[in-house]
Amino acid sequence: MSKIRLGILGGGGDSLIGVLHRVASNMYDRYEIVGGVFNPDYNQNIEFAKQIGVNTNRVYQDFESLIDEEIKKPLEERIEVVSVLTPNFLHFPMAKKLLENGFNVICEKPLTTSYEEAIELETLQKKNNTIFAVTYTYTGYPMVRHMKHMISEGELGEIHKVDIQYYQGWINPVIHDPELRKTVWRLDPKKAGISSCIGDIGTHAFQMAEYLTGKEVKSILSDLNTLYKDNTLDLDGTVLVRFKDNLKGVIRASQIATGEENNLSVAIYGGKGAYKWEQENPNFLYHLKDDEAMRVIKPGNTYVSEVAADGTKLPGGHPEGIFDAMGNIYKGVAKALRKETSFKGEFPTMRDGVRGMLFIEKVVESNQKGNIWLSMESK
Amino acid sequence: MSKIRLGILGGGGDSLIGVLHRVASNMYDRYEIVGGVFNPDYNQNIEFAKQIGVNTNRVYQDFESLIDEEIKKPLEERIEVVSVLTPNFLHFPMAKKLLENGFNVICEKPLTTSYEEAIELETLQKKNNTIFAVTYTYTGYPMVRHMKHMISEGELGEIHKVDIQYYQGWINPVIHDPELRKTVWRLDPKKAGISSCIGDIGTHAFQMAEYLTGKEVKSILSDLNTLYKDNTLDLDGTVLVRFKDNLKGVIRASQIATGEENNLSVAIYGGKGAYKWEQENPNFLYHLKDDEAMRVIKPGNTYVSEVAADGTKLPGGHPEGIFDAMGNIYKGVAKALRKETSFKGEFPTMRDGVRGMLFIEKVVESNQKGNIWLSMESK
Amino acid sequence: MSKIRLGILGGGGDSLIGVLHRVASNMYDRYEIVGGVFNPDYNQNIEFAKQIGVNTNRVYQDFESLIDEEIKKPLEERIEVVSVLTPNFLHFPMAKKLLENGFNVICEKPLTTSYEEAIELETLQKKNNTIFAVTYTYTGYPMVRHMKHMISEGELGEIHKVDIQYYQGWINPVIHDPELRKTVWRLDPKKAGISSCIGDIGTHAFQMAEYLTGKEVKSILSDLNTLYKDNTLDLDGTVLVRFKDNLKGVIRASQIATGEENNLSVAIYGGKGAYKWEQENPNFLYHLKDDEAMRVIKPGNTYVSEVAADGTKLPGGHPEGIFDAMGNIYKGVAKALRKETSFKGEFPTMRDGVRGMLFIEKVVESNQKGNIWLSMESK
Amino acid sequence: MSKIRLGILGGGGDSLIGVLHRVASNMYDRYEIVGGVFNPDYNQNIEFAKQIGVNTNRVYQDFESLIDEEIKKPLEERIEVVSVLTPNFLHFPMAKKLLENGFNVICEKPLTTSYEEAIELETLQKKNNTIFAVTYTYTGYPMVRHMKHMISEGELGEIHKVDIQYYQGWINPVIHDPELRKTVWRLDPKKAGISSCIGDIGTHAFQMAEYLTGKEVKSILSDLNTLYKDNTLDLDGTVLVRFKDNLKGVIRASQIATGEENNLSVAIYGGKGAYKWEQENPNFLYHLKDDEAMRVIKPGNTYVSEVAADGTKLPGGHPEGIFDAMGNIYKGVAKALRKETSFKGEFPTMRDGVRGMLFIEKVVESNQKGNIWLSMESK
Repeated sequence: MSKIRLGILGGGGDSLIGVLHRVASNMYDRYEIVGGVFNPDYNQNIEFAKQIGVNTNRVYQDFESLIDEEIKKPLEERIEVVSVLTPNFLHFPMAKKLLENGFNVICEKPLTTSYEEAIELETLQKKNNTIFAVTYTYTGYPMVRHMKHMISEGELGEIHKVDIQYYQGWINPVIHDPELRKTVWRLDPKKAGISSCIGDIGTHAFQMAEYLTGKEVKSILSDLNTLYKDNTLDLDGTVLVRFKDNLKGVIRASQIATGEENNLSVAIYGGKGAYKWEQENPNFLYHLKDDEAMRVIKPGNTYVSEVAADGTKLPGGHPEGIFDAMGNIYKGVAKALRKETSFKGEFPTMRDGVRGMLFIEKVVESNQKGNIWLSMESK
Repeated sequence: MSKIRLGILGGGGDSLIGVLHRVASNMYDRYEIVGGVFNPDYNQNIEFAKQIGVNTNRVYQDFESLIDEEIKKPLEERIEVVSVLTPNFLHFPMAKKLLENGFNVICEKPLTTSYEEAIELETLQKKNNTIFAVTYTYTGYPMVRHMKHMISEGELGEIHKVDIQYYQGWINPVIHDPELRKTVWRLDPKKAGISSCIGDIGTHAFQMAEYLTGKEVKSILSDLNTLYKDNTLDLDGTVLVRFKDNLKGVIRASQIATGEENNLSVAIYGGKGAYKWEQENPNFLYHLKDDEAMRVIKPGNTYVSEVAADGTKLPGGHPEGIFDAMGNIYKGVAKALRKETSFKGEFPTMRDGVRGMLFIEKVVESNQKGNIWLSMESK
Repeated sequence: MSKIRLGILGGGGDSLIGVLHRVASNMYDRYEIVGGVFNPDYNQNIEFAKQIGVNTNRVYQDFESLIDEEIKKPLEERIEVVSVLTPNFLHFPMAKKLLENGFNVICEKPLTTSYEEAIELETLQKKNNTIFAVTYTYTGYPMVRHMKHMISEGELGEIHKVDIQYYQGWINPVIHDPELRKTVWRLDPKKAGISSCIGDIGTHAFQMAEYLTGKEVKSILSDLNTLYKDNTLDLDGTVLVRFKDNLKGVIRASQIATGEENNLSVAIYGGKGAYKWEQENPNFLYHLKDDEAMRVIKPGNTYVSEVAADGTKLPGGHPEGIFDAMGNIYKGVAKALRKETSFKGEFPTMRDGVRGMLFIEKVVESNQKGNIWLSMESK
Repeated sequence: MSKIRLGILGGGGDSLIGVLHRVASNMYDRYEIVGGVFNPDYNQNIEFAKQIGVNTNRVYQDFESLIDEEIKKPLEERIEVVSVLTPNFLHFPMAKKLLENGFNVICEKPLTTSYEEAIELETLQKKNNTIFAVTYTYTGYPMVRHMKHMISEGELGEIHKVDIQYYQGWINPVIHDPELRKTVWRLDPKKAGISSCIGDIGTHAFQMAEYLTGKEVKSILSDLNTLYKDNTLDLDGTVLVRFKDNLKGVIRASQIATGEENNLSVAIYGGKGAYKWEQENPNFLYHLKDDEAMRVIKPGNTYVSEVAADGTKLPGGHPEGIFDAMGNIYKGVAKALRKETSFKGEFPTMRDGVRGMLFIEKVVESNQKGNIWLSMESK
């Protein structure tokens, strides 16, 4: 099967979100990055393309050129889908022109900077019937998918309570310093829009609530905290939410939850059971029932649903992060090959392999000889 | 900087180890897969190369051809490093010829099928001074590297006790069935060599012991269990180990630890402190001290060592598995683009983005108006 | 020092709350139960007194008699403090008469059935200057006291966010059965008062919020859920709370959180740090800070505050529940002494002691002889 | 039913073990402490008896007098069972004389100071057919009893692997100080006998192994560590154990596991499932099975076995330690009654009760009025 031709807007240089999308697109051998505009500066753009191995012929000056040029190419060569990884205010103009020209889009969240813009994009998308994904990344965890699937299958019965928390503490050292808090873009309404905490992480919690239950929130009541008079954007808030049918919920989000790193936690309670899940421990899903012992669901096991299995690449007990562990070993080898400074132990060496073989042989021998001590001195 | 030219032996088709190495090699944009022998069958080999986007000109019939042809190319084009992902018994002949011809090698563990072979490889490598990595993957976790680094810096003081466990339960349903246990290659000495449990996972535990302490085990005493008389290979074992200077340790490994998935757990106790770590929860490292509260070390924080930071791509609280979460979203989009059957909710849609924007606006409005209920009905 | 003369109202028969108060009063050898009214039925009352070893001379017909008779005794013989363990509606009349007569009181929560009654008691107590405790039991945990103390010492800096959850699921199987839900006293406004969930457990969460912060809640906004139209009392609710100075909080309580047992969880975030604690794991207190590893505080260690140390009887690592473990062994012996049916293994026997001694001797011998196998056959 | 007449040898003054046994004996209202020898010094002995409310008529000079005098009393008055809480070397002479005179005994562990003594006691006990308990306290936890029961019922199938760890770190700061280590009685063979670590805690691990499996260890092989040449007693050790039928196990014990408090951890693997349990988290029992999600068993639930239920006094979610929490509140009240210095917040006051009632009323009112803010100012 041919690979999907992917274009990328943004994500150049040291951008973490760029790394994340590139690795992700590569993970199942389904995409090929064929072009993009990685950087507003054209030279840096070209430089970066070389660095990540993208043909510079399809690296463009700006997103308008990318669209204008790609549209001229025959369908079977043209970029099929474009990932939009630029600062938030650019999502709208980029996505709009892409949709107008029939491109499929993978767009970072938040979709736009206002609801009006978002609706405009949706109208366009419906008209052109393109594929449009917004990367609420947390919905990609196998255990989140398992929850959604099982809830839709009725495993929890009727849902009666939805409780989602998204607590971070990163703004704490900033907000309490009267000078420092004036300098952070997140707290500047001109750059961050009408909200800091809810706009950045509250939306993740909200999307998770609707995603998992498959139901729409009908109304909300909120209470936000800005902490200081010279700060206008929310840093913390609680939102009461109501779905239909006496289903209530609560969303709590904070950037001043001191010491919290990225604590997105989910609890969904239904008449027949409940699920609890924490993003910082994403391979553990807790299934609660009346009068039964809590079960700890983990990916890679035969008992998980097909939708979760499809998102898991390794057997049970291998956390997804093992890919990163192997990635670090490859990085260590790369440094050695390029004679860069490397840390001691960045990759296991021949010696580790040799010692391992000696270990196996001696262990078997000790056992055979009646459990005696044997030397492990190697040649 | 130019990418490193990587060749791969094995890992074709549905091979999990193949996926793992390809994703890992891609993770920091440092490698390009330029050739290989992915499959013993040449047609499947070519087919697979196309599938993963490798130029078929450098896909060879067998590893001998790969070496013979690549060696003819000028150094600046030649494959620089070869990953060996084939069945264990092929590691030795492949690595040997690669080393004889000056190639750098990344080899899956176990290095060979005997200590003699391993020593032969090491002699060759020392002579040719090539880079040779054995992929004991677990050493790549940021928290494992942090442990190693801090131990070498003396943070734990003199080490007095090393306790490593590697428990799995996968062989349990096999071993208790008299017919089934005759059919598993892992239990066939002709295919698996002299050991099952120690050879497969005990070596990981052993390597971790030497890796973390920076010390060599001087002698061992083992006690193994084969459970049934018609089974000759070990399924479970305890190995007493002695390093120098009254430093003792114990390695426990099992394939009959029913219900355990991949429970590699490490505890290193020294005069000034201790570290504990579990592979299934790889982002949490426990640092114990006399008369002080235990600390929970996590990657992505300013307080971790440089060597750990170098192996972490995202801020604190984002488990490494988040790459996989994003990978799953990309996979979902790929299915949609190729009109394959997909699960409900495989990627967040435009609607999620629209609802998110509405949520932010309504939350801010409710708060401004004195915490009143507002409708979330969207256009 | 003489023991405190304690009287008890209620708590007879199989009452769990009775067991709890008796064991608690005994724990530090400070109280002696000298009288009471354990049961409304006088004969059962007397019977129960005998059973728990209380002199029947001071077992009374009703609480009025207890007060009238005890008041006649000289001060150095008189009951000093009375524990009120009766159904909620009796707390008020009992406490009132006790206060009017100068008795000190330990009263189960809720204090009364209305705020008006509570204020009346408080007025009386202030006038007579007696000691009056309301047993919000969770404030007695050493780690809760440590939190309170350290917060008052300023360890967390200015508090900015208070988040308390009290989730239970016990009413779930009841509430969804249209017949069953009519029969539970908890859901009958005549018996349970104006609230089910908030009245029973929400108050614990609220008290904890004020207890830990040392601050009063200034205003609240609530949203409750009764789930069914024929049910009038709340089963679940969220309460927004405001303290002074931009300190906001949220209290969440539920009886329909399916599968939750008694999940009281606390999070207090301040400018310099945070505390998190869960009642079902009461020996573990989590201390978070910006840019430092989370610390896990446990009782019995030298680093905990004096107030926590004072509430801990054993060295670190011995959970408070170990008293119950020992209590169960004593119970097993009692059954054996009284020739009651007992479970296998209800107490360790002589044989366990003998085997233990053999184990020690053989272990030392094996080590001395160079780590050889020795038989554990005992005489 | 009459209470059992209990005598106690030792446990006076500040003895922790004394507190533990007294509270435990009181927990189910089955025992009455009627006499004893709490202290070698007679005056202190009498003083202590008064303090804990024991009639001084039956407080004796020494254990011989206790036995000689009690034996003269009629059976229905005589002490029925004696708890031996004295230093280890006194266990033997005391238990011996008690057994010779037909007393039942509850004896602290270790039973004696040698296997020979232990066997002598057992012979006596068999002859006189008395009840004799050795307080291996950890067997009293409800979840330990559940394990034992379910294993004996065959829930785990045939047991194949037993792994018990008992790690402490308390001796770490002592052992590394050349002067200090000479002063600790635990390391003096004259006082501590032939073993430190194995004798003190390894025996607990061993007893747990035989207790849970219901099988006897047939042979052992040990490896101990004394760390320093001038120290002769073991501080750390690993013991390989063999039961019958290819059932092997490993016991690990340490006093130099820096930072560990009292980490007794159990893992029992069988053909059909496994149990894991940790003493520092005694209310959580982990049940593992092939291809099923791990279950977390907790006391107080309907699904636990009768033997566990019998050892649990409160509903699910109330950790056993809640008795201690209530005990601390009673202690706080006692201090107030005796005008001793107390900590702020040692017991919840009338004010807490009043505020609680206000909270309930305001919460219900806010909800009824459409979720509006209400003041919490109290009278």
